[in-house]
Amino acid sequence: MSNFAISSLGKAKFDSPLKKKFGLSAKPFVSDDTRVLFNPVIGEKGNGNCINYAESFEMAGPRGKIFFNPDTVRCAIVTCGGLCPGINDVIRSIVMTSHYHYGITSILGIRYGYQGLRTDDEFPPVALTPEEVEDIHLDGGTILGSSRGGTEDIDALVANITRLGINILYTIGGDGTQSGAHKIAQIAASKGLNLAVVGIPKTIDNDISYIQKSFGFETAFSIAVDAITSAHVEAKGAPNGIGLVKLMGRHSGFIAANATLAMNDVNFLLVPEVPFDLDGPNGFLAHLEARLLKRHHAVICVAEGAGQELLSGDKELERDASGNIKLQDIGVYLRDRINAYFKTKNIPANLKYIDPSYMIRSAPANPSDSIFCTLLGQNAVHAAMAGKTDMLIGSWNNIFTHVPIELAVSTRKKINPDSHFWYNVLQVTGQSPNMRN
Amino acid sequence: MSNFAISSLGKAKFDSPLKKKFGLSAKPFVSDDTRVLFNPVIGEKGNGNCINYAESFEMAGPRGKIFFNPDTVRCAIVTCGGLCPGINDVIRSIVMTSHYHYGITSILGIRYGYQGLRTDDEFPPVALTPEEVEDIHLDGGTILGSSRGGTEDIDALVANITRLGINILYTIGGDGTQSGAHKIAQIAASKGLNLAVVGIPKTIDNDISYIQKSFGFETAFSIAVDAITSAHVEAKGAPNGIGLVKLMGRHSGFIAANATLAMNDVNFLLVPEVPFDLDGPNGFLAHLEARLLKRHHAVICVAEGAGQELLSGDKELERDASGNIKLQDIGVYLRDRINAYFKTKNIPANLKYIDPSYMIRSAPANPSDSIFCTLLGQNAVHAAMAGKTDMLIGSWNNIFTHVPIELAVSTRKKINPDSHFWYNVLQVTGQSPNMRN
Amino acid sequence: MSNFAISSLGKAKFDSPLKKKFGLSAKPFVSDDTRVLFNPVIGEKGNGNCINYAESFEMAGPRGKIFFNPDTVRCAIVTCGGLCPGINDVIRSIVMTSHYHYGITSILGIRYGYQGLRTDDEFPPVALTPEEVEDIHLDGGTILGSSRGGTEDIDALVANITRLGINILYTIGGDGTQSGAHKIAQIAASKGLNLAVVGIPKTIDNDISYIQKSFGFETAFSIAVDAITSAHVEAKGAPNGIGLVKLMGRHSGFIAANATLAMNDVNFLLVPEVPFDLDGPNGFLAHLEARLLKRHHAVICVAEGAGQELLSGDKELERDASGNIKLQDIGVYLRDRINAYFKTKNIPANLKYIDPSYMIRSAPANPSDSIFCTLLGQNAVHAAMAGKTDMLIGSWNNIFTHVPIELAVSTRKKINPDSHFWYNVLQVTGQSPNMRN
Amino acid sequence: MSNFAISSLGKAKFDSPLKKKFGLSAKPFVSDDTRVLFNPVIGEKGNGNCINYAESFEMAGPRGKIFFNPDTVRCAIVTCGGLCPGINDVIRSIVMTSHYHYGITSILGIRYGYQGLRTDDEFPPVALTPEEVEDIHLDGGTILGSSRGGTEDIDALVANITRLGINILYTIGGDGTQSGAHKIAQIAASKGLNLAVVGIPKTIDNDISYIQKSFGFETAFSIAVDAITSAHVEAKGAPNGIGLVKLMGRHSGFIAANATLAMNDVNFLLVPEVPFDLDGPNGFLAHLEARLLKRHHAVICVAEGAGQELLSGDKELERDASGNIKLQDIGVYLRDRINAYFKTKNIPANLKYIDPSYMIRSAPANPSDSIFCTLLGQNAVHAAMAGKTDMLIGSWNNIFTHVPIELAVSTRKKINPDSHFWYNVLQVTGQSPNMRN
Repeated sequence: MSNFAISSLGKAKFDSPLKKKFGLSAKPFVSDDTRVLFNPVIGEKGNGNCINYAESFEMAGPRGKIFFNPDTVRCAIVTCGGLCPGINDVIRSIVMTSHYHYGITSILGIRYGYQGLRTDDEFPPVALTPEEVEDIHLDGGTILGSSRGGTEDIDALVANITRLGINILYTIGGDGTQSGAHKIAQIAASKGLNLAVVGIPKTIDNDISYIQKSFGFETAFSIAVDAITSAHVEAKGAPNGIGLVKLMGRHSGFIAANATLAMNDVNFLLVPEVPFDLDGPNGFLAHLEARLLKRHHAVICVAEGAGQELLSGDKELERDASGNIKLQDIGVYLRDRINAYFKTKNIPANLKYIDPSYMIRSAPANPSDSIFCTLLGQNAVHAAMAGKTDMLIGSWNNIFTHVPIELAVSTRKKINPDSHFWYNVLQVTGQSPNMRN
Repeated sequence: MSNFAISSLGKAKFDSPLKKKFGLSAKPFVSDDTRVLFNPVIGEKGNGNCINYAESFEMAGPRGKIFFNPDTVRCAIVTCGGLCPGINDVIRSIVMTSHYHYGITSILGIRYGYQGLRTDDEFPPVALTPEEVEDIHLDGGTILGSSRGGTEDIDALVANITRLGINILYTIGGDGTQSGAHKIAQIAASKGLNLAVVGIPKTIDNDISYIQKSFGFETAFSIAVDAITSAHVEAKGAPNGIGLVKLMGRHSGFIAANATLAMNDVNFLLVPEVPFDLDGPNGFLAHLEARLLKRHHAVICVAEGAGQELLSGDKELERDASGNIKLQDIGVYLRDRINAYFKTKNIPANLKYIDPSYMIRSAPANPSDSIFCTLLGQNAVHAAMAGKTDMLIGSWNNIFTHVPIELAVSTRKKINPDSHFWYNVLQVTGQSPNMRN
Repeated sequence: MSNFAISSLGKAKFDSPLKKKFGLSAKPFVSDDTRVLFNPVIGEKGNGNCINYAESFEMAGPRGKIFFNPDTVRCAIVTCGGLCPGINDVIRSIVMTSHYHYGITSILGIRYGYQGLRTDDEFPPVALTPEEVEDIHLDGGTILGSSRGGTEDIDALVANITRLGINILYTIGGDGTQSGAHKIAQIAASKGLNLAVVGIPKTIDNDISYIQKSFGFETAFSIAVDAITSAHVEAKGAPNGIGLVKLMGRHSGFIAANATLAMNDVNFLLVPEVPFDLDGPNGFLAHLEARLLKRHHAVICVAEGAGQELLSGDKELERDASGNIKLQDIGVYLRDRINAYFKTKNIPANLKYIDPSYMIRSAPANPSDSIFCTLLGQNAVHAAMAGKTDMLIGSWNNIFTHVPIELAVSTRKKINPDSHFWYNVLQVTGQSPNMRN
Repeated sequence: MSNFAISSLGKAKFDSPLKKKFGLSAKPFVSDDTRVLFNPVIGEKGNGNCINYAESFEMAGPRGKIFFNPDTVRCAIVTCGGLCPGINDVIRSIVMTSHYHYGITSILGIRYGYQGLRTDDEFPPVALTPEEVEDIHLDGGTILGSSRGGTEDIDALVANITRLGINILYTIGGDGTQSGAHKIAQIAASKGLNLAVVGIPKTIDNDISYIQKSFGFETAFSIAVDAITSAHVEAKGAPNGIGLVKLMGRHSGFIAANATLAMNDVNFLLVPEVPFDLDGPNGFLAHLEARLLKRHHAVICVAEGAGQELLSGDKELERDASGNIKLQDIGVYLRDRINAYFKTKNIPANLKYIDPSYMIRSAPANPSDSIFCTLLGQNAVHAAMAGKTDMLIGSWNNIFTHVPIELAVSTRKKINPDSHFWYNVLQVTGQSPNMRN
C-alpha cells in the first residue's frame, strides 16, 4: 500500500470536541482503516478476484481522536496560483469548521500566496474570523490574494512558518503549490516540527491525478458554455463566419471538452492530448475549409495547451521589437493562421476571437461547487487536526479521500483519446478523429 | 447476484455498427462481465476482505454485439410525471445516438406520457429526427408533453405498443413510471414479445435507490438557492422578518438540504426524514420564537413532504366550500400556523412565503446536468440495442450502470439523520437536532 | 404654475462645495428657473402654439448656492413599504453624494421605516458611512429594514425627528410613505423647523403620477419574464396545460404588461384597468376554454389588483376557521375558479400556479436601474441641500425633476386601455379586447 | 423646419387595415402634424419663450391613411454591420406587424447585409413568415446574417432591389448602413421608384445623433458590468493586480461610462472624448502607478476608440513579420505599455486583460431592449406603409419619432466632458479629470 500511505505527525491523543459538541455517538467518526478502492470496477478481464487492496485511499472524515489541542493550535491558510471559482468557499469552510467544530481561535490568512509566507513585511497575515468570512463565498477570487511561484527557498518559508508559530498550514493551490507544500512538509519533518501540511488541490483544468474532480472545474466549464454560444451566434451572423474560443487547459482539455459536450455547437475541438497538423491535405485548416464551403460557418474551441508543438516550430518568426522571442498564445496564433490561410485562398472569412479566461477564473462558485468546497474545507480541517500531513483532500467515487501529495503530483490526469469520453466529443463535433498528414 | 441481475431479450447476434463507423478497436466496448461494486469502501469493520461480489452493477456502455437490427428496429420515447430539468436533453441524446451511432431511422415520440401510449387518437405519436431535436436542450420541459398516471391498464398499453410496432420503449419517469415500465416488460416477456424496456430514472428529488444522482437534481437545488437568497433578503428587510421557502421533496429532503448547504442562509431546515413537533416547549414554533427574539429575522426552508403527520392531524379543520377535505400544503400550513402563533403571542412578525417549485421544474438543465443527460441517453440506447430490458440506466461511483427496475423501486433513498451529511446541515443552520417534545 | 411649484425652506446662502471641489465652472449648476415641459408634444390638435408653460417641472440638479451648512447639517434616510430592487443603491448614492460631494459627516439610517422613526428605543438609528455602504448595491432589499404604516401620529414623528436633530429627511417609499412625508413637511413648516423632506418615489408597480419611471420597475418586469417562461414550459408540458402567473400591480398593470410585451408567450393578460367577467358566454373562462380546445395550452398573467370586483362579490363564501372574512388573492382565486370550471366541464386541465412576487421584490437592481438609482440619490441630495422640501425626485423625458408631493400623490398612473400601449399588448396576447358579457 | 422634415412617396390614399381589424376609433392614429420638441427644457436662459418649433420631430405611429396596398406590397429586411443585441427582435416585430396588423404576405429576408442585396446568387433572399420568426428573439445575432460594407455601387443595389420587386426596404444598421440607405432612397426618388426606405438605427455604442437611445445599448452595458466585476476580482487577487477591460465605443464612450456608473469598481475610465497622455508626470501611467502604490490594485476600463492618437504615433514600431503595418488595438496596446512601464520601474504588476466584445455583441436582448425593439419594428412598418422614406425610427423623450437619415448621420453623439454625466463618472472612478501634461 506504499504510495497510498498517509504521513502522520504522531499519535492522536485528544478527544475530538465533536463528540461532546453535537451529542454524537461514535458512529460519524471515520477510522484510519477505512479505505476507498481506487478501482471499483471488477471482472473486467474475466477475473472476479481482481481487487487490489494495495490501491486504495484512506477515507477522509473526522477522527475520534485528534493530534492537536484546539485551544493552542495555530492554523494558516495560503492561496496560490491563478484564480479559480470556489477559493473563498474553501477558505470560509476551513475557518468555520475550525471555529465552530473544533473551537480553534487562531487562524491566519497569508496574503498573496507563498510570497506572503516568505516575507510578511509588506503584507502581514490577517486574522480570519467567522464574521469576516461569513459572506465571502458570494464573491469570486480569493480574499487573501494569490501569487505564482515563491517556492525557490523552502527553508526560508519553513523558517517564517516557524516564526509565525503555525502548526497547520492549509495550501490551496495546484501542482506547483502542492509540490512546494510537499517540500515544506518534508523539511518540517526532518526538523521534527509539529507542522501539518494539508493541501486542497486547486486546478481549474481538473488535471491532478488521483483526484476525480477538482473544485471550480464545473463552474468553469459551465461558464465556458456561454462563450461557445457567443461564438456560434457570431459564426452564423456573417458570411463564412468563424467563431474561435480559447479556453483554459494547459495540459488537459477537460474544460473545453466538457463545454463542448454540454452545448453541442462546437465543430472542431483542439486539445493538448490530441496533436494535429495545421497544413497539408489532412491538416486542420483543410478540414476547416471543407466545413466552411459546405456549411458557411464554423465554431472552433481550443484549449490553451493544444498544439504547443506548432508554436515552438514557428518560434523564430515571432520576436518582439527588442528581438526577444515572444511567447505565443495558441488562440491568437490560430486566429492569425486561419485568417492568413483564407486570405491566401481568397475566401473571405470572418473570424471572431473570444478569450473568456479571466471571466471564468474570477467567477464565484456555482451551488454545486460551493457545496463541494465546503466539504473539502471540512475534511481538510478533520485531517489536519488528526495530525495528517503531506497530503491532499481528494474526491474519489464521490467519497472524500486522503491522497499523498507525492502520488497526486507524480503524473497528470489527461483525456484518453481512446476513451468513450473522447469518442463522445468526436460525435458531438463531427470532426475527423485524425487531423494529421 | 440475484437482484442485481439484468434481464435480456436473448443472444445479441449483430455486429455493432459502431465498430465500422468510427474505426474503433474493440476496446471501447463493454463486456457484460464488467461490474461496478456497490460498496467501494473496504475495511470499515476491521476486515479487509469484505468485498461483496454479489452486490455489484452491470456496467453500462456500448456492446460489441447487439440484439436489434438497426435497419428495422422501431423505438419510442415516453416522458411521464412532473417536469424536471434535462428531459429534452435525454430525448435529444436518445434520438441522436440512435440515428448517428446506430443508423436507426424509426423513432417515435409518444405525446403526454402513458396517456398518449394508451390511446393515440387525440395525440398521435410524432416522428423524431435529428433536425427536430437539435436545439431542444436549450428549453426546459419536454417537447413530447407529459402526464401523470395512465398505468391502470398495462395490458392495453402493451397492446398499443404492439400495434405501433415498437421494439424499444424508453421510459423517462420516476418511481411510478418505472413500476409501470417493469410491468410492461414483464407482460411483454410473458407474451414472448421482442420488446426492450429501458428506463431513464427521472426524479427531481434524487430519491431513487441504487442511483447516486438523478438528472436535473443539481439544476434544481442550484435554482432553489436563489429562492433562499430572496427569503433571506425579505427576512432582513422587515422587523421580525421571516422568509419561508417551500421546495420539492415528497419523501426525501435532498433538494432542500443541498440548497441549504450551498447558501448558508437557512436557519431552519425541515425535511420528511426528521419529524418535528410544531407546538410545545421544544417544538419548532418555540425554537423559531427564540431565534426571532434574538436575531429579529429567520429563514425557514421546508421540503414539501416534511411534517405530513402534522397535516393529517388537522385534516378535519380544512374543508372546502363543498365540504370536501382539502389536501393541504405544508408550506401554506406552516405559513398560517406561524402567523397565528405570533399573533397569539402578540409578536408582530412579517412572514414572506416563497414557492418556486414550477420555476425550478421548468428550467433547462445546467451544463453539468446537460452532459449527464447526454450520457444517460447514450447508455440507454446502448443497453436497449444490446437487448437489455426491464432496467434503468444508473450512475454509481461516477460510472454508468444497469439497474434492475425492481431493485431501484424497491425502496426509497432518503437522508440518513445519523450521517455526516445531515450533521453538516445542522452545522450550517445552527438549528436544534431535535425539535420534539 | 401653482401645483407644479416647489416649496423652499428659504434663501440658499452658502456657496456649493462642488464649485471648489472639482474645479467646475458655473455651468453644471442648474437654475431654479430651468424647467422641463410636462408635454413635449405639440400641434396635436392642429395648433402649434399649445405649449402650457404652467405645466412644467422644476429641473433637478446641483445648485450654485445651498441652504444648509454641510459642516453642521444632519441627514437621515428612512425606507418604507415593500421591498423593491434598488433601495440599497439609492441609500448608497445619498450617503456617497452627501459625503464626497458636500462633505457631510452626519448621516443617520433609520431602522424599519417610520416605525423606527416613531420610536427608536428597540432599533436606534445607525450611522451611515461610505465604508459601510460601499458594496450594498450588490444585494437586494434594504440594509435599513423597512415596515409598512407608522404614520398614524405625525406629530410624534416630527417630535422624534426634532429630538434626533435631523435637518434633512430622505423618504424612500411609495404613495403612503410620501403622503406621510408631505404631512411631516407641512407640520415642520407650521412649526418653523428647518427640516427639508425630500422623497425618492419607490413603487415597483410604476404607478406614481408625474413620474415616468420609478426605480426597480425595469428590474421587476425583467425578472417577471422568467416566471412567464416557466409558465409557458409548464403549460406545454401537460395535456391542456395552463400556466398562471400572478405578478405585482395593485392598481396598475404595468409590470404584467411589460413582461407580456417582452416575452410574447402570454395568451391572457388581466390587469386592474380592464375589468372582465369570469362567467358567461363572453367571460374569461369561456375564452380560456376556447383557447384550450384549439391549442391545448394557455398562459395567463394576472396583476394582483385585477378583478377585485369579482373577489368582493364572492366575499361571503370565503371565511376562515374563526369566521373572519379572508382577504383573497386574485391568483389563488383564479386558480380555484379555473380548476372548478374545467372540472364541471369534464375537461381535464392541468393548471400550474406561479407567484414570483418576493423573488422579484428581493432582487438587486439590474445595471440600468442601478445607474438610475445613483442619479436619483444624487439629485435628492442636491435638492435637499438647496433647501427644497415637500417634494419628490422625478424622471420626465429622461430628465430629473422636482415634483411636489401633493401633485404626485393626487392621482395614480394607470394603463390607458385606449392607448397604443394596450393595443400592443392585445396584439401580443391575441386575447379579446373585451371579456365582458 | 427644413432639416427635420420627412420625405414622402406621395399621398396616402388607402384606409389603414388597423381601422377595421381591431375596431379602433380614429384616436390611436397619429397625424403628421403631431410633433415632438427637440428641446423640452425651457427658460434656461431666463427666457420662457424659447420654444423652437422648427426643431421638432414628426411623431411616429400608425397613420389612418396608408400609401401602399397591403395586398400587393413587397417588403425586404436587411441587417448590416456588427452584431448587436435585439436585431432578431426587430426582424420579428417587422414581420409580425406587417403580417398581423397590415395583412402583408410578401416579406423577404436579405442574407448577409448589403452584400446579399448586391448579388443574390450565392445566398438568395428567404421568405419570412410569422412561424419562422416566432422564437428568434430568444437568440442573439441575426437570423439573416450580416456583413460590413457593400455600398460601393448603389446603382447596382437599386437595380437589384427593383429586380426583386421590393417596395419597402427596412435597413437595420449603423451610420454607414444608413448613409447607404439614404443614397438608395435618393437614387430611387430620382428614378421615380415607389421605394420606401426606412431605417432602424443599430449602434451598440449609442452614438447616433438625434436618437436618444439605440436598441441593444442597455443590454450591452449591462453585460459589460460583468466584465468589470471580473477585472475587479482579478485585480484584487494578485499583488499589484491590474484588471484591464476593453469595451466597445469607436467614437463615443457611452457603454464604458454606463458600465462604470453601474458597478462603481472602475478606477480609470478612458474614452475617445477625453484625450489623455500615457507618459509624463501627469500622464495616465503615472496616475496608475500612484494608485497601485497606494491601493495595490486597479481596474481600468477603456473604450476601443480611446487614445487613437497614441496608437497612430507609434504606428512605425508595429509591423508584422511581412513588414506590413499592424493595426493596433488600444486594449492590447495599453496592456503592453503598462506591462513595459512597470517592468522598467521594477514594480511587479499583474495585469489581466479582458475583452468581452463578442460575448456582448452576440447576446440576446434583455427584456427592456426586447420591448424597445418590438416598438421600433412596429413604428418602422407604420412609417413605411404610410409612404415615408429616407428616414429612421428614433426615440426622443421616450416618444418614437421620424428622423431624416441625413440629419441623424450628420454628426455623432458623444459624451460631453463638461456635463453632469461625465462629472458623475469622475466621481465614481475618482480619477483625475485631466491626464495630460
